[in-house]
Amino acid sequence: MAGSIYGKLFRASTWGESHGKGVGVVVDGCPAGLELSEEDIQGYLNRRKPGQSKYATPRKEEDCVEILSGVFEGKTTGTPISMVVMNHTQRSGDYSEIASYYRPGHADYTFDEKYGFRDYRGGGRSSGRETIARVAAGAIAAKLLKQFGIEILTYTKSIGPVEIDYQKFDKNVIAENSLFMPDSEAAEAAGLYIEDMMRAHDSVGGMAECIVTGMPTGIGETVFDKLDANLAKAIVSIGAVKGFEIGDGMAVAKAIGSVNNDGFAMKGGKITKLSNHAGGTLGGMSDGSPIVIRAAFKPTPSILHEQATVNKAGEDITVSIKGRHDPIIVPRAVVVVESMVALTLIDGLMENMCARLDLMKEFYER
Amino acid sequence: MAGSIYGKLFRASTWGESHGKGVGVVVDGCPAGLELSEEDIQGYLNRRKPGQSKYATPRKEEDCVEILSGVFEGKTTGTPISMVVMNHTQRSGDYSEIASYYRPGHADYTFDEKYGFRDYRGGGRSSGRETIARVAAGAIAAKLLKQFGIEILTYTKSIGPVEIDYQKFDKNVIAENSLFMPDSEAAEAAGLYIEDMMRAHDSVGGMAECIVTGMPTGIGETVFDKLDANLAKAIVSIGAVKGFEIGDGMAVAKAIGSVNNDGFAMKGGKITKLSNHAGGTLGGMSDGSPIVIRAAFKPTPSILHEQATVNKAGEDITVSIKGRHDPIIVPRAVVVVESMVALTLIDGLMENMCARLDLMKEFYER
Amino acid sequence: MAGSIYGKLFRASTWGESHGKGVGVVVDGCPAGLELSEEDIQGYLNRRKPGQSKYATPRKEEDCVEILSGVFEGKTTGTPISMVVMNHTQRSGDYSEIASYYRPGHADYTFDEKYGFRDYRGGGRSSGRETIARVAAGAIAAKLLKQFGIEILTYTKSIGPVEIDYQKFDKNVIAENSLFMPDSEAAEAAGLYIEDMMRAHDSVGGMAECIVTGMPTGIGETVFDKLDANLAKAIVSIGAVKGFEIGDGMAVAKAIGSVNNDGFAMKGGKITKLSNHAGGTLGGMSDGSPIVIRAAFKPTPSILHEQATVNKAGEDITVSIKGRHDPIIVPRAVVVVESMVALTLIDGLMENMCARLDLMKEFYER
Amino acid sequence: MAGSIYGKLFRASTWGESHGKGVGVVVDGCPAGLELSEEDIQGYLNRRKPGQSKYATPRKEEDCVEILSGVFEGKTTGTPISMVVMNHTQRSGDYSEIASYYRPGHADYTFDEKYGFRDYRGGGRSSGRETIARVAAGAIAAKLLKQFGIEILTYTKSIGPVEIDYQKFDKNVIAENSLFMPDSEAAEAAGLYIEDMMRAHDSVGGMAECIVTGMPTGIGETVFDKLDANLAKAIVSIGAVKGFEIGDGMAVAKAIGSVNNDGFAMKGGKITKLSNHAGGTLGGMSDGSPIVIRAAFKPTPSILHEQATVNKAGEDITVSIKGRHDPIIVPRAVVVVESMVALTLIDGLMENMCARLDLMKEFYER
Repeated sequence: MAGSIYGKLFRASTWGESHGKGVGVVVDGCPAGLELSEEDIQGYLNRRKPGQSKYATPRKEEDCVEILSGVFEGKTTGTPISMVVMNHTQRSGDYSEIASYYRPGHADYTFDEKYGFRDYRGGGRSSGRETIARVAAGAIAAKLLKQFGIEILTYTKSIGPVEIDYQKFDKNVIAENSLFMPDSEAAEAAGLYIEDMMRAHDSVGGMAECIVTGMPTGIGETVFDKLDANLAKAIVSIGAVKGFEIGDGMAVAKAIGSVNNDGFAMKGGKITKLSNHAGGTLGGMSDGSPIVIRAAFKPTPSILHEQATVNKAGEDITVSIKGRHDPIIVPRAVVVVESMVALTLIDGLMENMCARLDLMKEFYER
Repeated sequence: MAGSIYGKLFRASTWGESHGKGVGVVVDGCPAGLELSEEDIQGYLNRRKPGQSKYATPRKEEDCVEILSGVFEGKTTGTPISMVVMNHTQRSGDYSEIASYYRPGHADYTFDEKYGFRDYRGGGRSSGRETIARVAAGAIAAKLLKQFGIEILTYTKSIGPVEIDYQKFDKNVIAENSLFMPDSEAAEAAGLYIEDMMRAHDSVGGMAECIVTGMPTGIGETVFDKLDANLAKAIVSIGAVKGFEIGDGMAVAKAIGSVNNDGFAMKGGKITKLSNHAGGTLGGMSDGSPIVIRAAFKPTPSILHEQATVNKAGEDITVSIKGRHDPIIVPRAVVVVESMVALTLIDGLMENMCARLDLMKEFYER
Repeated sequence: MAGSIYGKLFRASTWGESHGKGVGVVVDGCPAGLELSEEDIQGYLNRRKPGQSKYATPRKEEDCVEILSGVFEGKTTGTPISMVVMNHTQRSGDYSEIASYYRPGHADYTFDEKYGFRDYRGGGRSSGRETIARVAAGAIAAKLLKQFGIEILTYTKSIGPVEIDYQKFDKNVIAENSLFMPDSEAAEAAGLYIEDMMRAHDSVGGMAECIVTGMPTGIGETVFDKLDANLAKAIVSIGAVKGFEIGDGMAVAKAIGSVNNDGFAMKGGKITKLSNHAGGTLGGMSDGSPIVIRAAFKPTPSILHEQATVNKAGEDITVSIKGRHDPIIVPRAVVVVESMVALTLIDGLMENMCARLDLMKEFYER
Repeated sequence: MAGSIYGKLFRASTWGESHGKGVGVVVDGCPAGLELSEEDIQGYLNRRKPGQSKYATPRKEEDCVEILSGVFEGKTTGTPISMVVMNHTQRSGDYSEIASYYRPGHADYTFDEKYGFRDYRGGGRSSGRETIARVAAGAIAAKLLKQFGIEILTYTKSIGPVEIDYQKFDKNVIAENSLFMPDSEAAEAAGLYIEDMMRAHDSVGGMAECIVTGMPTGIGETVFDKLDANLAKAIVSIGAVKGFEIGDGMAVAKAIGSVNNDGFAMKGGKITKLSNHAGGTLGGMSDGSPIVIRAAFKPTPSILHEQATVNKAGEDITVSIKGRHDPIIVPRAVVVVESMVALTLIDGLMENMCARLDLMKEFYER
């Protein structure tokens, strides 16, 4: 499997299983001179920590990151940054039963088909713990982006049938509720919905939304490596994501051109778009408007609810997945979405530096 | 711009502008021994030809492909396959006005911002003609996939508000109507809708759907290079696509786990999924069920309808885009979607060959 | 075979066989704004043309390059540049015999082993004509490098036992003798040596040397992607090259540290190396001194001299390769070496732009 | 810096500085099912340990490797294998002086030029300790190759003027002498030479040679990604290597075709080469003969001998580098060469699996 490295110039090489010794990432290609400490990373990691709300799994995890290389006297040196989060509280005994059958909605079956066997403990490599590495790398990317005035805001847009109301949108509310919604009323309603589902031994899906402001124009390459195409891959590579949208997304299929097109106008001496149906890209390049994307997450596949499946002996059985599983994936995945977006944008910013000979010459003639 | 090469092992390197000398692609990594002729490619290219229906642009194009290398005595040799479609009927004179302003919904503005200037003739590199190269490469990929029993069926799922009815789904109908819909009644209704919009000087969006059957299980890598992530990038890299779905897609955000999970059962001695909400992948690997994906295409941005924009002199103006433009992108894009899927799948099939030591040993001990 | 694409940011995708329809290359990643015409490319191609001297094959080739894309109003646009040289004078009939056996020193045998069959006409993909594509791409890279004050000088250093005398080094002489040697006396002696060998139905080896001046310091990445490592790959990828040296090369194995180390000293307020045993790199990064590399080319494998080999029927036979073959590869390969160096350096220059956060910020704050 | 990842399908992502917390590597793309333990890695690492002979630095290092992921129940799972060697005995205090000037022959100057500052402790990222990560990854690659019957033998071919005598070649002797020479008399003579040089406060260069047996034919891609080109990059990427040779190497520049060409003959029903001047590749693909390559290592740059250099204040000074430095690099680098070769070959073996459609079909129809 050669699928655990992300990026072209800013590259994150991740590793680790749910119940192995730890999870980590090596970032190769981070520019030198960024002030970086473990606190910068930890702040991001804490946003995906379980046990922050009554809806999340009460499993106690101590996800403390350690930086092993690439930082000297408080600054990145331009060499690979290795970060690790050791697994402390894992008990393999919990998972003996799971080894014997294929959990619906999980990668157990495909892992066995592809590799002949699998590390069945807690989902192994396909566990949600894999995202720790994405977030650690994403924290660096996001800190870099801030140096260029680029900010990423990510939140839960909907949970099951409960959507946020943009009239009540308050970004300060996001961190205040355990569902990371920017609308406290929606958060409350969603909480009730989740409780209902938990009582029914079921789980629920939801949607994350991400808004990037401050992007320079022209980032992204024009054919296969469009900025939106790279974002699509970044987002759909997150486990449980089944749909990706930019701007008006799937709704454009029902739109008409005179409405969907974003006209241009001069504002304060600058060319600006009059609307943002496109979601911040034109022809695969950032257009100066905010980048707006959405990801649809399926319901947590591990549920107490009885399900039909097959065991290793080739017998039809029914199972009920016990253990401490979140009934909803989205809130803890919000920071994962943000991280994947950050990794994608910083890579685009880097590649874009070679787009024009005149600017390259200025760079080398400085 | 380093964004015109697609793939890791089966790589397509495309080139060409709308009004340059031609459009083409070099395929590097095609296995040796595939019977291949220009007819194989031409058949695919003809599916994206304009002028096939009253809704498509009447512009006469002679998109004849020529294979320049990589085929010897009717078979691929394992060396790069260069294919070219020369541009014959382009007249640069048509586009002088367009050079002076930024067309809403087009890449004119971002191209200028990124590169300092642009080939303004007919959209240049961001023209729909760019997809000729994708389709030429895709035709080879699709022919390869057929050798493994993998078939791809792609069609128009909806146009504006008109959706196909799966009860009336007939794949034989697809090629028979100019909108490539598998439901002739829907095709008729969609045709009327398009005519209405044309009269209103407007354009319409739509959705393409693609179903892959015969995929072996286990294709795709488990973290960043998930099969669905790669498909997302492939599809969103097509101009005008604003949303990507696999399986239940965006709808999973409202689903509950007990319904969304696909249970397993033994059927004829084989493990099978009881449903296919997942759309053919689990944990980023193909799961043996059909792969089902969708792409939402925005309405054609070039419309006669008046639009606000800005000219090069920095003045607010209104424009009405004349010329022969399709009022709808989807039907001609159906084969582009199919091509990008084929390119992605063959690459996955190749990379998967190194997944297991025992199978690698068998391969080399043959 | 996925081996015909070179580079990371400035990428050359080459194609074509000796006796196919043509040979070409697509350059993806060339920055926008470079003035470029077919003459720029042709000038480079002419340096590898056969028939320029009595030692080279008298075969008449019309290697006229055509640019098919990526240039608009005389400047590169940032989109892929497709270049093609059509094959005009190839006659397949010449090569029917060669199909029946394996030529010693050629890729006939390995091609058959790898791919099951081969395009046997004139060496197919492994013909020297493949280098046309390298040179066409290299011409663009070299023109780009000149914008940064980087010049590459390449010449024949030795032919068989005849070496140039650095006391008599005159770069103006290089283009004046058909062996591209910077010492006219050596050129004359080498010419006599070649004539002797031709009479003996034999061929001779030789060495090319390349000196790069004007390189900024710090180009190259510090571990696997060292500038010298990338140059080594670039050079050894040229057919017939069996050895690569930078600076003192193989001789360092006999050197002692106190002599081999290049001391530093201040000169005109700048840090300078007192000698250049290293050949212009330290720790994989350019150090401000000229880059000096050498490539050893084996003798042309096609010789009239009788050789033992095996035919397709599995019989031991002896062969004498007829046809018009150069008795020496180096002179025509000089421009190929230069091209591969240029491709490698421009890629390094591009990647280096992301090395430092402070300079990236300056770039985006301009 | 994006230069710390090696390989295309079998990828090693390395990290770590001499005096940081540790050194490590993540291997992404290792096939599932290889039996692997820390002992497999440790055995390789021990071969590069210092303090094994009187010539090597007496610095006591405890280079114990730990596998953090990718292995389950004693076998690789197909997921990334993270390995780490923590640094224990490093004392930063040793290196305060070195921060103030540029050591000749080291990367100090280029690091500062590229990144603006450097981790000056013990060479930082450009320390010899970086190779620990290469060897850990190489140990896995070498173990994989053995499954295919491929063996790599690497040894010291020469030290200063002392070369091995192939008449006395005994591979069993290699591990018995601290210089890793396959000729005990040469080893003794070389030892005396080194002692002389140490007394003169100087250091010496040398050459490593590597022979690969059991390679299948056809491994390697035919144009840029030739097997020999990839080996050249692999070898020259090792610090202190200034020259690379395959087969007859630089000597081919003086050879004539009738001698240099390797004829073919039938032996035991198989096509065989009558000699191996080529060193095991033809046209960039393995030809069934042993692969023979050589690397020239410069003398250790850190010497007690006085040298001219420049300090940070821009003053000309002379320095004498104290500390425990090996007077010769080659012996400890032998296993690094072997590791880089192993990494390159396994990658080639993997990519080659997609070369032929018929074999791909067999693979998937099993």
